[in-house]
Amino acid sequence: MYKDSNLRTILKTISWRFTATATTITLVYLFTGQIRTAIEVGLLELVAKMIIYYLHEKGWARLKFGRVEIPAYVIWITGMPYSGKTTLGNMLAESLEKDQRKIQRLDSHTVRSLFPETGFTREEVNRHIKRVGHLASILEKNGIIAIASFVSPYTESREFVRGLCRNFVEVHLKSTAEFARQFDKEGFFDRIAKGELRDVPGVDKPYEYCEKTELSFDMRQHSLQQVHDAVLTYVKKAYN
Amino acid sequence: MYKDSNLRTILKTISWRFTATATTITLVYLFTGQIRTAIEVGLLELVAKMIIYYLHEKGWARLKFGRVEIPAYVIWITGMPYSGKTTLGNMLAESLEKDQRKIQRLDSHTVRSLFPETGFTREEVNRHIKRVGHLASILEKNGIIAIASFVSPYTESREFVRGLCRNFVEVHLKSTAEFARQFDKEGFFDRIAKGELRDVPGVDKPYEYCEKTELSFDMRQHSLQQVHDAVLTYVKKAYN
Repeated sequence: MYKDSNLRTILKTISWRFTATATTITLVYLFTGQIRTAIEVGLLELVAKMIIYYLHEKGWARLKFGRVEIPAYVIWITGMPYSGKTTLGNMLAESLEKDQRKIQRLDSHTVRSLFPETGFTREEVNRHIKRVGHLASILEKNGIIAIASFVSPYTESREFVRGLCRNFVEVHLKSTAEFARQFDKEGFFDRIAKGELRDVPGVDKPYEYCEKTELSFDMRQHSLQQVHDAVLTYVKKAYN
Repeated sequence: MYKDSNLRTILKTISWRFTATATTITLVYLFTGQIRTAIEVGLLELVAKMIIYYLHEKGWARLKFGRVEIPAYVIWITGMPYSGKTTLGNMLAESLEKDQRKIQRLDSHTVRSLFPETGFTREEVNRHIKRVGHLASILEKNGIIAIASFVSPYTESREFVRGLCRNFVEVHLKSTAEFARQFDKEGFFDRIAKGELRDVPGVDKPYEYCEKTELSFDMRQHSLQQVHDAVLTYVKKAYN
Protein backbone atom coordinates (compact mmCIF):
# COMPACT_ATOMS: atom_id res chain seq x y z
CA MET A 1 0.00 0.00 0.00
CA TYR A 2 1.22 3.49 -0.85
CA LYS A 3 0.48 7.09 -0.01
CA ASP A 4 1.90 10.25 -1.57
CA SER A 5 4.44 12.25 0.41
CA ASN A 6 3.80 15.98 0.86
CA LEU A 7 6.86 16.74 -1.26
CA ARG A 8 5.45 14.63 -4.07
CA THR A 9 2.15 16.50 -4.01
CA ILE A 10 3.90 19.90 -3.88
CA LEU A 11 6.02 19.04 -6.92
CA LYS A 12 3.02 17.67 -8.73
CA THR A 13 1.16 20.89 -7.98
CA ILE A 14 4.01 23.05 -9.32
CA SER A 15 4.43 20.94 -12.42
CA TRP A 16 0.73 21.12 -13.20
CA ARG A 17 0.46 24.85 -12.63
CA PHE A 18 3.33 25.66 -15.00
CA THR A 19 1.80 23.42 -17.63
CA ALA A 20 -1.66 24.88 -17.22
CA THR A 21 -0.62 28.51 -17.06
CA ALA A 22 1.63 28.17 -20.09
CA THR A 23 -1.37 26.73 -21.89
CA THR A 24 -3.60 29.63 -20.80
CA ILE A 25 -1.05 32.23 -21.83
CA THR A 26 -0.49 30.60 -25.21
CA LEU A 27 -4.21 30.36 -25.83
CA VAL A 28 -4.74 33.98 -24.80
CA TYR A 29 -1.98 35.14 -27.13
CA LEU A 30 -3.47 33.15 -30.04
CA PHE A 31 -6.81 34.84 -29.30
CA THR A 32 -5.76 38.42 -30.06
CA GLY A 33 -2.51 39.34 -28.42
CA GLN A 34 -4.84 40.67 -25.72
CA ILE A 35 -7.76 38.86 -24.23
CA ARG A 36 -11.43 39.33 -25.06
CA THR A 37 -13.29 38.06 -22.06
CA ALA A 38 -12.69 35.83 -19.09
CA ILE A 39 -15.57 33.63 -20.12
CA GLU A 40 -14.21 32.92 -23.58
CA VAL A 41 -10.91 31.83 -22.25
CA GLY A 42 -12.59 29.99 -19.40
CA LEU A 43 -14.67 27.89 -21.77
CA LEU A 44 -11.79 27.04 -24.04
CA GLU A 45 -9.64 26.26 -21.05
CA LEU A 46 -12.38 24.01 -19.75
CA VAL A 47 -11.85 21.59 -22.62
CA ALA A 48 -8.16 21.93 -23.38
CA LYS A 49 -6.83 21.75 -19.83
CA MET A 50 -9.02 18.83 -18.97
CA ILE A 51 -7.23 16.74 -21.55
CA ILE A 52 -3.82 18.03 -20.52
CA TYR A 53 -4.59 17.46 -16.85
CA TYR A 54 -5.65 13.91 -17.49
CA LEU A 55 -2.46 13.10 -19.38
CA HIS A 56 -0.47 14.82 -16.65
CA GLU A 57 -2.11 12.65 -13.97
CA LYS A 58 -1.44 9.51 -15.97
CA GLY A 59 2.19 10.52 -16.44
CA TRP A 60 2.66 11.00 -12.72
CA ALA A 61 1.06 7.63 -12.00
CA ARG A 62 4.08 6.06 -13.73
CA LEU A 63 6.56 7.87 -11.52
CA LYS A 64 7.87 6.27 -8.35
CA PHE A 65 9.31 9.45 -6.88
CA GLY A 66 7.77 10.46 -3.55
CA ARG A 67 5.51 7.45 -3.44
CA VAL A 68 6.21 6.15 0.02
CA GLU A 69 5.20 2.95 1.66
CA ILE A 70 3.35 3.08 4.93
CA PRO A 71 5.25 0.75 7.26
CA ALA A 72 3.71 -2.47 8.48
CA TYR A 73 4.11 -3.90 11.97
CA VAL A 74 3.36 -6.90 14.12
CA ILE A 75 0.91 -6.66 17.00
CA TRP A 76 1.54 -9.61 19.28
CA ILE A 77 -1.24 -10.16 21.79
CA THR A 78 -0.27 -12.39 24.69
CA GLY A 79 -1.91 -13.48 27.92
CA MET A 80 -3.69 -16.30 29.68
CA PRO A 81 -6.70 -18.10 28.19
CA TYR A 82 -9.95 -16.06 28.19
CA SER A 83 -8.13 -12.79 28.72
CA GLY A 84 -9.68 -11.36 25.52
CA LYS A 85 -6.84 -11.84 23.01
CA THR A 86 -8.89 -13.11 20.08
CA THR A 87 -11.64 -10.53 20.47
CA LEU A 88 -9.09 -7.72 20.73
CA GLY A 89 -7.24 -9.01 17.66
CA ASN A 90 -10.44 -9.10 15.64
CA MET A 91 -11.45 -5.60 16.79
CA LEU A 92 -8.04 -4.21 15.80
CA ALA A 93 -8.15 -5.98 12.43
CA GLU A 94 -11.57 -4.49 11.69
CA SER A 95 -10.46 -0.97 12.55
CA LEU A 96 -7.24 -1.16 10.55
CA GLU A 97 -9.00 -2.62 7.50
CA LYS A 98 -11.12 0.53 7.37
CA ASP A 99 -7.88 2.41 6.67
CA GLN A 100 -7.32 0.15 3.62
CA ARG A 101 -4.44 -1.59 5.37
CA LYS A 102 -3.65 -5.21 4.59
CA ILE A 103 -4.14 -7.28 7.71
CA GLN A 104 -3.40 -10.91 8.46
CA ARG A 105 -4.79 -12.37 11.65
CA LEU A 106 -2.67 -15.11 13.17
CA ASP A 107 -4.09 -17.32 15.87
CA SER A 108 -4.16 -21.02 16.56
CA HIS A 109 -7.08 -21.42 14.16
CA THR A 110 -5.45 -19.53 11.26
CA VAL A 111 -2.10 -21.28 11.47
CA ARG A 112 -3.43 -24.79 12.02
CA SER A 113 -3.03 -25.76 8.36
CA LEU A 114 0.52 -24.40 8.34
CA PHE A 115 1.74 -25.64 11.69
CA PRO A 116 -0.36 -28.39 13.21
CA GLU A 117 0.11 -28.13 16.98
CA THR A 118 2.78 -30.51 18.08
CA GLY A 119 2.40 -30.45 21.83
CA PHE A 120 2.33 -28.49 25.02
CA THR A 121 5.78 -28.92 26.52
CA ARG A 122 7.78 -25.74 26.99
CA GLU A 123 10.03 -26.71 24.08
CA GLU A 124 7.16 -27.51 21.72
CA VAL A 125 5.29 -24.32 22.55
CA ASN A 126 8.43 -22.24 22.05
CA ARG A 127 9.10 -23.90 18.69
CA HIS A 128 5.52 -23.25 17.58
CA ILE A 129 5.62 -19.58 18.61
CA LYS A 130 8.94 -19.09 16.82
CA ARG A 131 7.52 -20.48 13.59
CA VAL A 132 4.52 -18.21 13.83
CA GLY A 133 6.98 -15.39 14.43
CA HIS A 134 8.83 -16.24 11.22
CA LEU A 135 5.53 -16.07 9.38
CA ALA A 136 4.64 -12.73 11.02
CA SER A 137 8.00 -11.28 10.00
CA ILE A 138 7.55 -12.42 6.37
CA LEU A 139 4.16 -10.72 6.31
CA GLU A 140 5.50 -7.55 7.94
CA LYS A 141 8.41 -7.38 5.46
CA ASN A 142 5.82 -7.43 2.67
CA GLY A 143 3.82 -4.53 4.06
CA ILE A 144 1.13 -6.57 5.82
CA ILE A 145 0.11 -5.84 9.38
CA ALA A 146 0.19 -9.12 11.32
CA ILE A 147 -2.05 -9.36 14.35
CA ALA A 148 -1.14 -12.46 16.33
CA SER A 149 -2.97 -13.70 19.40
CA PHE A 150 -1.40 -16.57 21.28
CA VAL A 151 -1.08 -17.35 24.98
CA SER A 152 2.70 -17.41 24.31
CA PRO A 153 3.62 -17.53 27.99
CA TYR A 154 7.39 -17.86 27.56
CA THR A 155 9.69 -14.86 27.36
CA GLU A 156 12.22 -16.80 25.27
CA SER A 157 10.01 -17.28 22.22
CA ARG A 158 8.35 -13.87 22.48
CA GLU A 159 11.78 -12.22 22.55
CA PHE A 160 12.84 -14.35 19.60
CA VAL A 161 9.87 -13.10 17.58
CA ARG A 162 10.55 -9.51 18.61
CA GLY A 163 14.07 -9.93 17.23
CA LEU A 164 12.75 -11.16 13.86
CA CYS A 165 10.36 -8.26 13.31
CA ARG A 166 11.14 -4.65 12.42
CA ASN A 167 8.17 -3.09 14.18
CA PHE A 168 6.92 -5.20 17.04
CA VAL A 169 4.30 -4.28 19.61
CA GLU A 170 3.70 -6.74 22.38
CA VAL A 171 0.31 -6.29 24.00
CA HIS A 172 -0.08 -8.20 27.24
CA LEU A 173 -3.58 -8.78 28.54
CA LYS A 174 -3.20 -9.45 32.24
CA SER A 175 -6.01 -11.35 33.87
CA THR A 176 -6.69 -13.81 36.68
CA ALA A 177 -8.38 -17.19 36.66
CA GLU A 178 -11.19 -15.76 38.81
CA PHE A 179 -11.81 -12.89 36.41
CA ALA A 180 -11.27 -14.82 33.16
CA ARG A 181 -13.73 -17.52 34.22
CA GLN A 182 -16.74 -15.31 33.41
CA PHE A 183 -15.82 -15.40 29.69
CA ASP A 184 -15.48 -19.19 29.62
CA LYS A 185 -18.55 -20.67 27.94
CA GLU A 186 -16.81 -23.95 27.06
CA GLY A 187 -16.15 -25.25 30.56
CA PHE A 188 -12.40 -24.70 30.23
CA PHE A 189 -11.90 -23.76 33.86
CA ASP A 190 -14.13 -26.63 35.02
CA ARG A 191 -11.81 -29.03 33.20
CA ILE A 192 -8.82 -27.49 34.97
CA ALA A 193 -10.63 -27.86 38.30
CA LYS A 194 -11.33 -31.53 37.53
CA GLY A 195 -7.67 -32.08 36.65
CA GLU A 196 -8.45 -32.82 32.99
CA LEU A 197 -6.28 -29.89 31.89
CA ARG A 198 -2.96 -29.09 33.51
CA ASP A 199 -0.05 -26.72 33.12
CA VAL A 200 -2.25 -23.90 31.89
CA PRO A 201 -0.16 -20.70 31.76
CA GLY A 202 -1.48 -18.05 34.06
CA VAL A 203 -3.65 -20.59 35.86
CA ASP A 204 -1.56 -23.39 37.33
CA LYS A 205 1.70 -22.51 35.58
CA PRO A 206 3.34 -19.09 35.66
CA TYR A 207 3.07 -16.65 32.76
CA GLU A 208 6.49 -15.13 32.20
CA TYR A 209 6.41 -11.34 32.26
CA CYS A 210 8.89 -9.31 30.25
CA GLU A 211 9.83 -5.73 30.94
CA LYS A 212 10.14 -5.03 27.22
CA THR A 213 6.38 -5.46 26.71
CA GLU A 214 5.22 -2.30 24.94
CA LEU A 215 1.67 -2.29 26.26
CA SER A 216 0.24 -4.09 29.26
CA PHE A 217 -3.33 -3.92 30.46
CA ASP A 218 -4.99 -5.31 33.56
CA MET A 219 -8.25 -6.59 32.12
CA ARG A 220 -10.01 -6.14 35.49
CA GLN A 221 -9.53 -2.39 35.08
CA HIS A 222 -9.90 -1.83 31.32
CA SER A 223 -12.62 -2.68 28.83
CA LEU A 224 -11.60 -4.29 25.53
CA GLN A 225 -12.73 -1.09 23.80
CA GLN A 226 -10.31 0.95 25.91
CA VAL A 227 -7.49 -1.48 25.17
CA HIS A 228 -8.36 -1.42 21.44
CA ASP A 229 -8.27 2.40 21.42
CA ALA A 230 -4.95 2.51 23.27
CA VAL A 231 -3.28 -0.01 20.95
CA LEU A 232 -4.57 1.80 17.87
CA THR A 233 -3.31 5.14 19.15
CA TYR A 234 0.05 3.59 19.89
CA VAL A 235 0.61 1.98 16.49
CA LYS A 236 -0.68 4.99 14.55
CA LYS A 237 1.67 7.25 16.46
CA ALA A 238 4.62 4.89 16.15
CA TYR A 239 4.32 3.72 12.54
CA ASN A 240 2.17 6.03 10.41
CA MET B 1 -0.33 -1.77 -3.71
CA TYR B 2 -2.79 0.40 -5.62
CA LYS B 3 -3.18 2.09 -8.95
CA ASP B 4 -5.83 4.58 -10.09
CA SER B 5 -8.53 3.41 -12.44
CA ASN B 6 -9.15 5.44 -15.62
CA LEU B 7 -12.56 6.42 -14.30
CA ARG B 8 -11.00 7.77 -11.14
CA THR B 9 -8.57 9.91 -13.12
CA ILE B 10 -11.30 11.18 -15.46
CA LEU B 11 -13.48 12.23 -12.53
CA LYS B 12 -10.50 13.81 -10.82
CA THR B 13 -9.75 15.73 -13.98
CA ILE B 14 -13.32 17.00 -14.28
CA SER B 15 -13.51 17.98 -10.63
CA TRP B 16 -10.24 19.91 -10.87
CA ARG B 17 -11.16 21.72 -14.06
CA PHE B 18 -14.47 22.98 -12.68
CA THR B 19 -12.72 24.18 -9.55
CA ALA B 20 -9.92 25.86 -11.48
CA THR B 21 -12.08 27.47 -14.14
CA ALA B 22 -14.53 28.80 -11.59
CA THR B 23 -11.54 30.33 -9.83
CA THR B 24 -10.26 31.90 -13.07
CA ILE B 25 -13.65 33.31 -13.98
CA THR B 26 -14.15 34.73 -10.50
CA LEU B 27 -10.70 36.31 -10.55
CA VAL B 28 -11.24 37.73 -14.02
CA TYR B 29 -14.54 39.27 -12.92
CA LEU B 30 -12.93 40.82 -9.85
CA PHE B 31 -10.26 42.33 -12.16
CA THR B 32 -12.53 44.61 -14.22
CA GLY B 33 -15.68 42.88 -15.39
CA GLN B 34 -13.54 42.37 -18.49
CA ILE B 35 -9.99 41.17 -18.50
CA ARG B 36 -6.81 43.26 -18.90
CA THR B 37 -4.23 40.89 -20.17
CA ALA B 38 -3.58 37.19 -20.25
CA ILE B 39 -0.31 37.68 -18.38
CA GLU B 40 -1.89 39.46 -15.41
CA VAL B 41 -4.43 36.72 -14.94
CA GLY B 42 -1.79 34.08 -15.65
CA LEU B 43 0.47 35.35 -12.87
CA LEU B 44 -2.27 35.62 -10.31
CA GLU B 45 -3.57 32.21 -11.34
CA LEU B 46 -0.06 30.82 -10.91
CA VAL B 47 -0.19 31.42 -7.17
CA ALA B 48 -3.84 30.96 -6.36
CA LYS B 49 -4.47 27.77 -8.28
CA MET B 50 -1.33 26.15 -7.01
CA ILE B 51 -2.70 26.31 -3.47
CA ILE B 52 -6.14 25.11 -4.56
CA TYR B 53 -4.66 22.29 -6.63
CA TYR B 54 -2.58 21.10 -3.72
CA LEU B 55 -5.57 20.98 -1.41
CA HIS B 56 -7.56 19.25 -4.14
CA GLU B 57 -4.88 16.55 -4.51
CA LYS B 58 -4.78 16.01 -0.76
CA GLY B 59 -8.54 15.74 -0.65
CA TRP B 60 -8.57 13.05 -3.33
CA ALA B 61 -5.82 11.16 -1.54
CA ARG B 62 -8.35 10.52 1.23
CA LEU B 63 -10.93 9.08 -1.16
CA LYS B 64 -11.08 5.34 -1.80
CA PHE B 65 -13.25 5.57 -4.90
CA GLY B 66 -11.63 4.19 -8.04
CA ARG B 67 -8.49 3.14 -6.25
CA VAL B 68 -8.15 -0.42 -7.41
CA GLU B 69 -5.86 -3.13 -6.24
CA ILE B 70 -3.64 -4.86 -8.77
CA PRO B 71 -4.25 -8.59 -8.25
CA ALA B 72 -1.54 -10.83 -6.91
CA TYR B 73 -0.86 -14.37 -8.05
CA VAL B 74 1.19 -17.45 -7.33
CA ILE B 75 3.85 -18.62 -9.77
CA TRP B 76 4.62 -22.24 -8.96
CA ILE B 77 7.80 -23.47 -10.63
CA THR B 78 8.10 -27.25 -10.68
CA GLY B 79 10.53 -29.70 -12.25
CA MET B 80 13.40 -32.06 -11.59
CA PRO B 81 16.57 -30.96 -9.75
CA TYR B 82 18.88 -28.67 -11.78
CA SER B 83 16.17 -27.79 -14.28
CA GLY B 84 16.62 -24.06 -13.51
CA LYS B 85 13.75 -23.46 -11.07
CA THR B 86 15.61 -21.31 -8.54
CA THR B 87 17.34 -19.18 -11.16
CA LEU B 88 14.07 -18.62 -13.01
CA GLY B 89 12.30 -17.71 -9.75
CA ASN B 90 14.97 -15.16 -8.89
CA MET B 91 14.89 -13.65 -12.39
CA LEU B 92 11.12 -13.28 -12.24
CA ALA B 93 11.28 -11.75 -8.76
CA GLU B 94 13.82 -9.19 -9.91
CA SER B 95 11.74 -8.17 -12.94
CA LEU B 96 8.50 -7.90 -10.97
CA GLU B 97 10.13 -5.89 -8.18
CA LYS B 98 11.01 -3.23 -10.76
CA ASP B 99 7.26 -2.74 -11.19
CA GLN B 100 7.02 -1.97 -7.45
CA ARG B 101 5.24 -5.25 -6.83
CA LYS B 102 5.61 -7.03 -3.52
CA ILE B 103 7.25 -10.38 -4.08
CA GLN B 104 7.91 -13.28 -1.75
CA ARG B 105 10.22 -16.01 -2.96
CA LEU B 106 9.40 -19.44 -1.56
CA ASP B 107 11.92 -22.23 -1.91
CA SER B 108 13.33 -24.87 0.38
CA HIS B 109 15.80 -22.32 1.77
CA THR B 110 13.17 -19.64 2.50
CA VAL B 111 10.71 -21.93 4.21
CA ARG B 112 13.23 -23.92 6.23
CA SER B 113 12.60 -21.89 9.41
CA LEU B 114 8.84 -22.31 8.98
CA PHE B 115 8.65 -25.93 7.91
CA PRO B 116 11.78 -27.94 8.64
CA GLU B 117 11.85 -30.73 6.06
CA THR B 118 10.37 -33.84 7.53
CA GLY B 119 11.30 -36.46 4.99
CA PHE B 120 11.22 -37.67 1.45
CA THR B 121 8.40 -40.18 1.34
CA ARG B 122 5.54 -39.37 -0.99
CA GLU B 123 3.32 -38.56 1.96
CA GLU B 124 5.87 -36.29 3.64
CA VAL B 125 6.66 -34.41 0.43
CA ASN B 126 2.96 -33.91 -0.28
CA ARG B 127 2.37 -32.62 3.25
CA HIS B 128 5.27 -30.19 2.92
CA ILE B 129 4.11 -28.87 -0.46
CA LYS B 130 0.58 -28.41 0.86
CA ARG B 131 1.85 -26.32 3.78
CA VAL B 132 3.91 -24.16 1.46
CA GLY B 133 0.77 -23.80 -0.65
CA HIS B 134 -1.18 -22.54 2.37
CA LEU B 135 1.53 -19.96 2.92
CA ALA B 136 1.49 -18.94 -0.76
CA SER B 137 -2.28 -18.49 -0.66
CA ILE B 138 -2.06 -16.31 2.49
CA LEU B 139 0.49 -14.12 0.72
CA GLU B 140 -1.56 -13.95 -2.48
CA LYS B 141 -4.70 -13.02 -0.54
CA ASN B 142 -2.75 -10.09 0.91
CA GLY B 143 -1.65 -8.78 -2.48
CA ILE B 144 1.80 -10.33 -2.53
CA ILE B 145 3.08 -12.23 -5.55
CA ALA B 146 4.43 -15.58 -4.35
CA ILE B 147 7.08 -17.22 -6.52
CA ALA B 148 7.59 -20.78 -5.35
CA SER B 149 10.22 -23.15 -6.73
CA PHE B 150 10.01 -26.74 -5.56
CA VAL B 151 10.59 -30.05 -7.32
CA SER B 152 7.00 -30.87 -6.24
CA PRO B 153 6.78 -33.98 -8.42
CA TYR B 154 3.32 -35.14 -7.29
CA THR B 155 0.14 -34.02 -9.00
CA GLU B 156 -1.87 -34.47 -5.81
CA SER B 157 -0.16 -31.72 -3.83
CA ARG B 158 0.26 -29.37 -6.80
CA GLU B 159 -3.47 -29.65 -7.51
CA PHE B 160 -4.20 -29.04 -3.83
CA VAL B 161 -2.19 -25.82 -3.94
CA ARG B 162 -3.89 -24.74 -7.17
CA GLY B 163 -7.21 -25.14 -5.40
CA LEU B 164 -6.11 -22.90 -2.51
CA CYS B 165 -4.97 -20.02 -4.69
CA ARG B 166 -7.07 -17.54 -6.66
CA ASN B 167 -4.56 -16.92 -9.44
CA PHE B 168 -2.23 -19.84 -9.93
CA VAL B 169 0.31 -20.33 -12.69
CA GLU B 170 2.15 -23.61 -12.77
CA VAL B 171 5.40 -23.41 -14.69
CA HIS B 172 6.92 -26.78 -15.43
CA LEU B 173 10.58 -26.91 -16.41
CA LYS B 174 11.04 -30.18 -18.24
CA SER B 175 14.56 -31.52 -18.37
CA THR B 176 16.47 -34.80 -18.47
CA ALA B 177 19.18 -36.16 -16.21
CA GLU B 178 21.65 -35.97 -19.11
CA PHE B 179 20.84 -32.32 -19.79
CA ALA B 180 20.47 -31.21 -16.16
CA ARG B 181 23.83 -32.69 -15.22
CA GLN B 182 25.76 -29.81 -16.81
CA PHE B 183 24.33 -27.40 -14.19
CA ASP B 184 25.30 -29.66 -11.27
CA LYS B 185 28.38 -28.21 -9.57
CA GLU B 186 27.75 -30.06 -6.29
CA GLY B 187 28.13 -33.61 -7.51
CA PHE B 188 24.42 -34.33 -7.09
CA PHE B 189 24.20 -36.66 -10.08
CA ASP B 190 27.44 -38.40 -9.04
CA ARG B 191 25.83 -39.23 -5.72
CA ILE B 192 22.82 -40.68 -7.53
CA ALA B 193 25.15 -42.76 -9.71
CA LYS B 194 26.94 -44.05 -6.60
CA GLY B 195 23.61 -44.98 -5.05
CA GLU B 196 23.98 -42.42 -2.22
CA LEU B 197 20.81 -40.64 -3.34
CA ARG B 198 17.71 -42.51 -4.44
CA ASP B 199 14.15 -41.86 -5.49
CA VAL B 200 15.01 -38.54 -7.15
CA PRO B 201 11.97 -37.33 -9.11
CA GLY B 202 12.67 -37.06 -12.80
CA VAL B 203 15.80 -39.13 -12.43
CA ASP B 204 15.07 -42.55 -10.96
CA LYS B 205 11.50 -41.83 -9.94
CA PRO B 206 8.81 -40.46 -12.28
CA TYR B 207 7.77 -36.83 -12.26
CA GLU B 208 3.98 -36.68 -12.46
CA TYR B 209 2.78 -34.52 -15.33
CA CYS B 210 -0.53 -32.71 -15.15
CA GLU B 211 -2.52 -31.47 -18.10
CA LYS B 212 -3.63 -28.39 -16.15
CA THR B 213 -0.09 -26.99 -16.09
CA GLU B 214 -0.35 -23.47 -17.49
CA LEU B 215 3.15 -23.23 -18.92
CA SER B 216 5.56 -26.02 -19.75
CA PHE B 217 9.02 -25.62 -21.24
CA ASP B 218 11.51 -28.15 -22.48
CA MET B 219 14.74 -26.72 -21.12
CA ARG B 220 16.74 -28.33 -23.90
CA GLN B 221 14.96 -26.05 -26.35
CA HIS B 222 14.51 -22.81 -24.40
CA SER B 223 16.92 -20.53 -22.57
CA LEU B 224 16.00 -19.35 -19.09
CA GLN B 225 15.69 -15.84 -20.51
CA GLN B 226 13.09 -17.05 -23.02
CA VAL B 227 11.18 -18.85 -20.27
CA HIS B 228 11.37 -15.74 -18.05
CA ASP B 229 9.99 -13.56 -20.84
CA ALA B 230 7.18 -15.99 -21.61
CA VAL B 231 6.11 -16.28 -17.95
CA LEU B 232 6.21 -12.51 -17.50
CA THR B 233 4.11 -11.97 -20.62
CA TYR B 234 1.63 -14.57 -19.39
CA VAL B 235 1.12 -13.13 -15.89
CA LYS B 236 0.98 -9.53 -17.09
CA LYS B 237 -1.67 -10.44 -19.64
CA ALA B 238 -3.65 -12.58 -17.21
CA TYR B 239 -3.54 -10.47 -14.04
CA ASN B 240 -2.65 -6.82 -14.71
